[in-house]
Amino acid sequence: MDNDVKEFEEKEIEHEKALEVAIEKQDNEKLKDIVEQMHPIDIAIALEDSDDEDLTYIYSKLNDEQIAEIIEQADEELQIKMITLLEASRAMGVFEYMSKDDIVDILGILPLNKRKELINLMRSGDKKIIQELLGYDERTAGGIMTTEYVAVSDSLTIQQTISKIKELALKTEVIDTIFVVNHKKELIGSVDLRDILVAPYQESLQHIMNENIISVTPETDQEKVSLLVSKYDLRVIPVVNKRNSLLGIITVDDIIDVIVEEYQEDMSHLAGTSVEETIYSPIKDSIKMRLPWLMVNLVTAFLASFTVSMFEGTIDKVTALAAAMPIVAGMGGNAGSQELSIIVRSIALGEASLQENWTLIFKKALLGIINGAIIGLFAGIILYFMYGNIYLGFIIFASMIANLVIAGVVGVLVPLTLKAFKVDPALASAVFVTTATDVLGFFIFLGLATLIIHRLV
Amino acid sequence: MDNDVKEFEEKEIEHEKALEVAIEKQDNEKLKDIVEQMHPIDIAIALEDSDDEDLTYIYSKLNDEQIAEIIEQADEELQIKMITLLEASRAMGVFEYMSKDDIVDILGILPLNKRKELINLMRSGDKKIIQELLGYDERTAGGIMTTEYVAVSDSLTIQQTISKIKELALKTEVIDTIFVVNHKKELIGSVDLRDILVAPYQESLQHIMNENIISVTPETDQEKVSLLVSKYDLRVIPVVNKRNSLLGIITVDDIIDVIVEEYQEDMSHLAGTSVEETIYSPIKDSIKMRLPWLMVNLVTAFLASFTVSMFEGTIDKVTALAAAMPIVAGMGGNAGSQELSIIVRSIALGEASLQENWTLIFKKALLGIINGAIIGLFAGIILYFMYGNIYLGFIIFASMIANLVIAGVVGVLVPLTLKAFKVDPALASAVFVTTATDVLGFFIFLGLATLIIHRLV
Repeated sequence: MDNDVKEFEEKEIEHEKALEVAIEKQDNEKLKDIVEQMHPIDIAIALEDSDDEDLTYIYSKLNDEQIAEIIEQADEELQIKMITLLEASRAMGVFEYMSKDDIVDILGILPLNKRKELINLMRSGDKKIIQELLGYDERTAGGIMTTEYVAVSDSLTIQQTISKIKELALKTEVIDTIFVVNHKKELIGSVDLRDILVAPYQESLQHIMNENIISVTPETDQEKVSLLVSKYDLRVIPVVNKRNSLLGIITVDDIIDVIVEEYQEDMSHLAGTSVEETIYSPIKDSIKMRLPWLMVNLVTAFLASFTVSMFEGTIDKVTALAAAMPIVAGMGGNAGSQELSIIVRSIALGEASLQENWTLIFKKALLGIINGAIIGLFAGIILYFMYGNIYLGFIIFASMIANLVIAGVVGVLVPLTLKAFKVDPALASAVFVTTATDVLGFFIFLGLATLIIHRLV
Repeated sequence: MDNDVKEFEEKEIEHEKALEVAIEKQDNEKLKDIVEQMHPIDIAIALEDSDDEDLTYIYSKLNDEQIAEIIEQADEELQIKMITLLEASRAMGVFEYMSKDDIVDILGILPLNKRKELINLMRSGDKKIIQELLGYDERTAGGIMTTEYVAVSDSLTIQQTISKIKELALKTEVIDTIFVVNHKKELIGSVDLRDILVAPYQESLQHIMNENIISVTPETDQEKVSLLVSKYDLRVIPVVNKRNSLLGIITVDDIIDVIVEEYQEDMSHLAGTSVEETIYSPIKDSIKMRLPWLMVNLVTAFLASFTVSMFEGTIDKVTALAAAMPIVAGMGGNAGSQELSIIVRSIALGEASLQENWTLIFKKALLGIINGAIIGLFAGIILYFMYGNIYLGFIIFASMIANLVIAGVVGVLVPLTLKAFKVDPALASAVFVTTATDVLGFFIFLGLATLIIHRLV
């Protein structure tokens, strides 16, 4: 790591400690001074372990805007603690400084009665917006959009637009893109603020606006939104209803959160754990998150075990087969993981679907034959030299080809099928693929051995 | 998928087809019309399979700005093809419309002689910037920054700042954040454009600027930059040298690319394939990317196989042991994958390091004991009922605990050690962890069986 960033991080840690000391000693001067210097997210991190007394002290010293910034950045647990401790009337003041989508996110995690209490205290205009936003699934465009945007009428001149922007600037999340609506309030275009700044004052807004805009509806899945934003390098994407009225916007910083969330979810699900687990999770949470997956895999492992036990008679005659079993299972498992990582990523990027990808399965089968033959050749030769039996080499060669074909075909078919049934392919694929490569792999390997048992003993 | 986005995607496909037809028929009118309506990224995707003749025709009909936009969005292969086909003098014209960081990215993938030819044709000012940017590692802040930003002197008034912004607006990538430098050209603050727009004309810029800015140096790793941007919800981050002079900026759309790249790399590496492999990769590329990993794993599998072969005498006496082997290996492998996915993500987020995480290892060992005991109890009971031998149940119980402890400890220790040696933990961890769980797992299971063999037969 380079020194500049290291220095910055050291300063951060120093601030955190100073903040803790200021709170402990209730040093008002010091507290205000430190809070001024720190970023809200760092304050939120420092406050994670603080108790009600600490928070009450902080509430008495900070203003509504500062509290709003800290709550916005806090993790869910701290958000619940902070809002619950805040008097309802004060909460209204704090909400004034928060964007509607953040308020909705917080309301969404509160107990129902607390949520209702707060909503009832809101001004009727705000109440309506908040209730509408609460109606959207939190993983859709409606769930992550904000209603703080600048929309101006297409009949304005540049000069009028600039005055309008100045008037709205402080209340919005994004001002570098201005949305343009017609008299029916339909979204008809967008204008880059830089184009407004350099255009002549009397020019009509219509002349410089970009009509070719990409929008989503509130129901659009957040992953889809993130794909559009990253493909077209957008800094903001508008959300419209079926009549093309502008409902809200989604900003790029929320999209980054979505991208990180979706990837972490895929990684965790492929490995059979939960996206909520971190290295800081208490042991009981780790057990709760991992044990179900291990149990499912225990069933899989027993299926493989039953398959092997069917051939105990064969193994009894040729124990070398037992020694070769880890090779069959290991290589099938590895090839399956390779396949899954590629397909799950493709599905996330919207590239792969069951309808379009029948040819893909033949391609993967061919890949399995080639890789299997190469790996099988090496494995077969080594086993031949170990046990001096050419037939043992041959059956490992054949089994390796079969198992890598299975890994490839099942590795494509399972996630695409799960996707078609709207099940998260990352979550459930691994167990099916492992079962297939283990059970079929052992069956083919030990079955072949049983067929030519007289050549092996 | 909702209809709005679907409609948009259908239009996209229609455009693509129309573009192909226009190129094939060399229909000039149609071509210009379609290009106007399409986003450059979609044009680039449509052109991926086009030949030199198609591209030459397009070059003759589109202007430099349009070509620049397409090249910026093209994938590497198409970029090389397009630039190579472009006359050097025309390339200079096209570069006028591209940001310096994009030009540098393209020069970086060109053959050395072509790169030199183009650099030599540049104006000396541009040449200097380009050569400087080319000097940075492409995975650092210097490698992804752009030099198109707005920096103004702290001595300006708001009115002067606005004129300056208007003057520079069209040449920059970001205008919603304006950087402020002092007379020594040191970066001393930043101003939000919205604050400039609402401030009184005669106010001094110094009064409204934010001095608390986060910057990186050109050497900062791109992953570190992306962590800062996503933690602090930044839309742009400045890059400064040791004397705090502003060298460039990194915009949030480039950060999204970094985040996607780093996650895809972790996912692919954990599964033992390459981030370059997609479902569209030709078979020979898939073989090249996967075979080395399968070969490494073949060595691992043989280590496990040798371990088993040491105990062939024991298996010969009790073939039920062979049937139980997949359970030992399978559960160890799964627990190891779970651990790796958590640790690799923590390392990527900068949370885990070898120095600070000794306690983590004890925690993982404890987790292994608890999960191992629960899983082992189930497995032991089932095996007892299958074979009617309580001792077989006992050794699978003990082995399961041992193997899950191994998975946890090795799963933490290996990636952290690799990280300490600056090796990508995602790439190399899986093979070490699998080897440990397979080899030690079989050794413990079959070793215990050998010790109490008289109880098993």
